[in-house]
Amino acid sequence: MDTIDRRRFLGMSAALPFVRAPMQAANVQADTDLTRTLAAHVVSARSGDLPAAVRKEARRTLVNWMACAVGGSPHPTLTVALSALGPFSGPAQATVVGRKERLDILHASLMNGISSHVLDFDDTHPPTIIHASSAIVPAILALAEQRPPISGSDFLQALVLGVDVACRIGKSVYPAHYDAGWHITGTAGVFGAAAAVGKLLSLPAEQMVWALGLAAAQPVGLQEMFGTMTKSFHPGRAAQNGLTSALLASKGFTSSNQPLEARFGWTRVLASRRNEAAITDDLGTRYEISINTYKPFACGVVIHPTIDGCIQIRNEHRLQPSAIARVELRVHPLVLQLTGKKAPQSGLESKFSVYHAAAVALIQGAGGVAQFTDQAARDASVVSLREKVVTEVDPAIHEDEVRILVTTTDGRRIDKHVEHALGSVERPMSDADLERKFAALAEGVLPSAQVRRLTELCWTIEDLRDVSDLARAAAIT
Amino acid sequence: MDTIDRRRFLGMSAALPFVRAPMQAANVQADTDLTRTLAAHVVSARSGDLPAAVRKEARRTLVNWMACAVGGSPHPTLTVALSALGPFSGPAQATVVGRKERLDILHASLMNGISSHVLDFDDTHPPTIIHASSAIVPAILALAEQRPPISGSDFLQALVLGVDVACRIGKSVYPAHYDAGWHITGTAGVFGAAAAVGKLLSLPAEQMVWALGLAAAQPVGLQEMFGTMTKSFHPGRAAQNGLTSALLASKGFTSSNQPLEARFGWTRVLASRRNEAAITDDLGTRYEISINTYKPFACGVVIHPTIDGCIQIRNEHRLQPSAIARVELRVHPLVLQLTGKKAPQSGLESKFSVYHAAAVALIQGAGGVAQFTDQAARDASVVSLREKVVTEVDPAIHEDEVRILVTTTDGRRIDKHVEHALGSVERPMSDADLERKFAALAEGVLPSAQVRRLTELCWTIEDLRDVSDLARAAAIT
Repeated sequence: MDTIDRRRFLGMSAALPFVRAPMQAANVQADTDLTRTLAAHVVSARSGDLPAAVRKEARRTLVNWMACAVGGSPHPTLTVALSALGPFSGPAQATVVGRKERLDILHASLMNGISSHVLDFDDTHPPTIIHASSAIVPAILALAEQRPPISGSDFLQALVLGVDVACRIGKSVYPAHYDAGWHITGTAGVFGAAAAVGKLLSLPAEQMVWALGLAAAQPVGLQEMFGTMTKSFHPGRAAQNGLTSALLASKGFTSSNQPLEARFGWTRVLASRRNEAAITDDLGTRYEISINTYKPFACGVVIHPTIDGCIQIRNEHRLQPSAIARVELRVHPLVLQLTGKKAPQSGLESKFSVYHAAAVALIQGAGGVAQFTDQAARDASVVSLREKVVTEVDPAIHEDEVRILVTTTDGRRIDKHVEHALGSVERPMSDADLERKFAALAEGVLPSAQVRRLTELCWTIEDLRDVSDLARAAAIT
Repeated sequence: MDTIDRRRFLGMSAALPFVRAPMQAANVQADTDLTRTLAAHVVSARSGDLPAAVRKEARRTLVNWMACAVGGSPHPTLTVALSALGPFSGPAQATVVGRKERLDILHASLMNGISSHVLDFDDTHPPTIIHASSAIVPAILALAEQRPPISGSDFLQALVLGVDVACRIGKSVYPAHYDAGWHITGTAGVFGAAAAVGKLLSLPAEQMVWALGLAAAQPVGLQEMFGTMTKSFHPGRAAQNGLTSALLASKGFTSSNQPLEARFGWTRVLASRRNEAAITDDLGTRYEISINTYKPFACGVVIHPTIDGCIQIRNEHRLQPSAIARVELRVHPLVLQLTGKKAPQSGLESKFSVYHAAAVALIQGAGGVAQFTDQAARDASVVSLREKVVTEVDPAIHEDEVRILVTTTDGRRIDKHVEHALGSVERPMSDADLERKFAALAEGVLPSAQVRRLTELCWTIEDLRDVSDLARAAAIT
């Protein structure tokens, strides 16, 4: 798909920085079969009907997810969660990626959701900023170990459908839902986990609706939690809640038949405006996973253009930090809403500071895991430089765009315009980029031979007769 | 406390049907220490400082909770939940009330929250309609079995503080939050569970704030789920989420320091208007549990005046159902919002049908568990009579008030005005009423001697050195 087609597909135009779908007023008559239509689609979808390009993007999504989960597995966030909740785990059914522990599938889903999101390095669905895989893969990967054999082909289809359900529901309430302060990765992600697990459990349509109903009753995630361990808890809990929802529904636990569209349903309670057509338009012919993107930098995605530009400036001009007098950033409004922390005190907080990101990229020429640690957040030269960074919000700037002006102490002015950040729809990460990312994240956590085998298993997932082989290949043995 | 004092205490006036506290516009400056103030209060509260009347009401709350949990324990909702999730339970640490199963404390909390709410027979905090105990007691009762000995006195204090936290936070967003469609028992209840567990874990103030932060990120419950099994899942999941939140925080899992009051905090994201002062006003001198009420009828509380009045009409006039031509109800607006189902198909749905309730009360002269079963919902005479029930909303009618006019086929007009329903603040259930309710709910589930012992243990909870004795006394052995 070329750039123009991809932008059209995203609903973007050249004229507007970030086109938002027309929103329905609260009093417009709803589609009273909305959830049933969506559920029926998931139930009847056949694995063989997925276009090759969709399956390809799903494999890229899986590769990126696994890289992030392995890379995040040693993080203190996961260690703390395991120490707090591990003692309550049931049977040792499922792998915690990158670790030795085996937990019941509900706890494994939570843990793998945390690890795959904690580095803020996972995938992004541009129209909604949903990091879908972190709320979905953990649930179906755990299930695959409990109910073998689930084939790689069925697994990949469940992932495609889960991402589709989460991102379509997300689109139906974006931007109102996100602007209100919800962390959409958790609140919409749970539907994806419920649908994907429900598909692998072969739920009939009524139970699939109930699974979505149970998911609707359990939204997880507020933007206020960004910069704390609770942020990565959101997709983890969404995965766990979605799995729980499908398991309950599979035994006949009843829920609403209109959980999305009813007067007190999810799209109405959790958003002041909505576009329910986004949930069913082109269902089965267009797949949201087709436009999934993958982060080159380990932090909030709206900072990426800034890092990209600052790395370019650093590489082109080799400025000493002390030679920089001022850094001006013209950014999209969401950049300050989401990443406006001026003085981050920890690595997790620094992932939501465009000030820190600009400074560390100008000094170190990178935006990887090492640039967003507690140590990096407290580094004297970074702290000194970030205080020289100023921002200006400009609604005419795209979310994946930035204009940077660096003024040096001797009066030079260096400007840089990043039209589309690396990793965006227009400048996507290549397969080779993803493999390099995988290696960089996984080396040091798992032995090199295991890293290579794990990468290969993700790329060739459709050849797997039993996806529990993939899960086991991700554990420390 | 006499009637006038209790109404004042509730913030009610004689002139207005249901006084609502003044609401803050979204742009009013927030108290930036709101959560810290609340957490510090919970952390520093001393058990010995609780007034005797508060402890008395807490014991009544516990008696009523246990009655409902035992009575609800054989319900299919719980049986299905146990069959779906029981296989994933961890160590057999905690009692499932009224059952043989023992589960890990997280799953036990969920199950006991479901059973105590599934009959819609639990307690009600009138200013918010929060059924607080079902989201709180399950969490601390489970904890008591895992970390013995927790004394009855400490347990009761944790319950008081949990109810206070949940209901104060609920008051801060009522009615906007409730009117939007949230099931406030779950969404606010989770804070109560987190605070109560946090108190028993002796969390320091910072961790108590984080526990509330993790709770804020996990609101459970939409009104759309009323009439389905998911309704009682709400307080169960709230108990489980609150317990999870406190356990995570106790190991250092970080969260926001301003989860309630921040720009994207809970009170702002989940309500269009708020009154944050309700969270801290008279903290430590006034306790929300003091105004807790207990249901005499097993259904949505706003139906209670109708049942009360219809039973009176039935007992006074002994009408044959076939002699009734028409039943007119003038009710508070919430009655139709919450309980407007005209043709309920199941027992769970019938609990949210004022039409069914009026019919069954006129025919059977009762509003107990037996009047809201699948069988009762499908009973031909009930179905026939409920179709003759019409409602008119009148904002001048209190929530605990109704005006009923029955017209007979021979032209008689019988009217009944219920000013305050049985079980309301003005006509509270006596201790003897609660004991009768306990016996009626528990007999048949547990042996009579065990029922008597369990009732006695609840009344004398403060004498218990180890509350795990109470939990074990509620199990089928």
